[in-house]
Amino acid sequence: MQVSQRLTVEVIDITDPADERVDDFRDLNSVDRRPDLPALPGGSVGKALVIAEGVLVVQRMIASRFSPHALFGVDRRLAELSGDVVEGAGGIPFYRASKEVMAEVIGFHLNRGVLSAARRPQALTVAAAISSARTVAVLEGVNDHENIGSVFRNAAGLGVDAVIFGPGCADPLYRRCVRVSMGHALLVPFAKSDDWAGDLERLRGDGFRTIALTPGEGSVPLRQAVQGEKLAFLVGAEGPGLKEHTMRSCDVRAHIPMSRGTDSLNVATAAAVAFYEALSR
Amino acid sequence: MQVSQRLTVEVIDITDPADERVDDFRDLNSVDRRPDLPALPGGSVGKALVIAEGVLVVQRMIASRFSPHALFGVDRRLAELSGDVVEGAGGIPFYRASKEVMAEVIGFHLNRGVLSAARRPQALTVAAAISSARTVAVLEGVNDHENIGSVFRNAAGLGVDAVIFGPGCADPLYRRCVRVSMGHALLVPFAKSDDWAGDLERLRGDGFRTIALTPGEGSVPLRQAVQGEKLAFLVGAEGPGLKEHTMRSCDVRAHIPMSRGTDSLNVATAAAVAFYEALSR
Repeated sequence: MQVSQRLTVEVIDITDPADERVDDFRDLNSVDRRPDLPALPGGSVGKALVIAEGVLVVQRMIASRFSPHALFGVDRRLAELSGDVVEGAGGIPFYRASKEVMAEVIGFHLNRGVLSAARRPQALTVAAAISSARTVAVLEGVNDHENIGSVFRNAAGLGVDAVIFGPGCADPLYRRCVRVSMGHALLVPFAKSDDWAGDLERLRGDGFRTIALTPGEGSVPLRQAVQGEKLAFLVGAEGPGLKEHTMRSCDVRAHIPMSRGTDSLNVATAAAVAFYEALSR
Repeated sequence: MQVSQRLTVEVIDITDPADERVDDFRDLNSVDRRPDLPALPGGSVGKALVIAEGVLVVQRMIASRFSPHALFGVDRRLAELSGDVVEGAGGIPFYRASKEVMAEVIGFHLNRGVLSAARRPQALTVAAAISSARTVAVLEGVNDHENIGSVFRNAAGLGVDAVIFGPGCADPLYRRCVRVSMGHALLVPFAKSDDWAGDLERLRGDGFRTIALTPGEGSVPLRQAVQGEKLAFLVGAEGPGLKEHTMRSCDVRAHIPMSRGTDSLNVATAAAVAFYEALSR
């Protein structure tokens, strides 16, 4: 038993939905107050918290570099977390409430019954994220939270060591993204590129073969492109795909053989196929 | 120009949301009235319509064996369909409405702006669905509409000729499934198995190598399992997976190599990887 890895929590019962102590979990779906927004509509600064929901994702947050500073849930979920949290003085608060009070605070009924909140740690640099990586995913213009969450899940399952976000990507730490990723957004190292052209060069300079996934002309079948020790797969959003100048700076363009020309696969599915090809060599 | 393949429509303006002529599109999200339900809660018979939404999916319905008997949309979407529908006497109705009237009828604002409705044609038998197929997907216990929709999309993109639904699967013709499939649920032949053990035998008898996808013991890596002219990939729901007696009746069990043991991939993603492996041989 690795008791030392458990999180110590102090259980505090919440009976008043207006209680300010649970403000970090308030109005999770409200566009102008959501605590997981770095910037609120109108430009004011948001809390920029990371919210995990459900026993599995909360467990992964506890195991990650995102240390929760508070949990909020119903008694049954506290019991289900007994392998991961232990009650004790000086711990972080576990705000315990009925499901009705919880629904009033967060703004909807949460079937998963438990949440944890963390402040965002310092972001990783691209250099740090790729430093010991063998396979990385590099996204450009992927602005759909569910797709980003799925990329993280597929990356974790299929041996990808880091995810790099280029221009136009959505925030990978939004609640929905964290949920769809099954918590792997908290575990797979990622970094946001602030110097896109420079970071693409950095990847090549660090020995990565940069492979642009595209159904377009001049591309080779994926299997043919996957060679070399270190691989970076670049994927763009469904529809527009990668920008031409991005593809030009890559070592090779690769396509997934498709049977009925016009339809692309979902971006996370296409990425999964590429990750699989890299893992199965 | 293949004018003969266009659908002839008669435009009828709808200004009253209560107009009974658009009842086939009414209350699309209402649990107890939805026109795409074969059976309504309580057991009464539903309309069992198939509803396509959005220009792309409506186009695919028109091209499919699901002949629409009515369309409902805003004027702009009618214009966007000009390559697929032509106005003329004796055509099926295109009920044209403002987006406000349309929202009142269907019960929410539909950004995609156009719907078509078809009565369900006679279901295919398993024998008919697999008769000229080379690669088929066989689902057991997959009861999530989005996953089924994604399986159809991936099947269409990656060369799968038919989808067979075993016990415990959700209806592949629900609106959400058709939407997520990008309309491919209407184009890829599918059949529901009424004799599960018999149909698994039929597949083998017809020369299909039946491959059970499972992360479990006794499985070989996917690439090793993919051999032979005709392939049938069996996939179960996330979590429970395929039933043991189903796997026992298959030729081989195969796993997708995974990097972090515990997490399975999403079922549609796992299926896509298998389809890719079959297509890339």
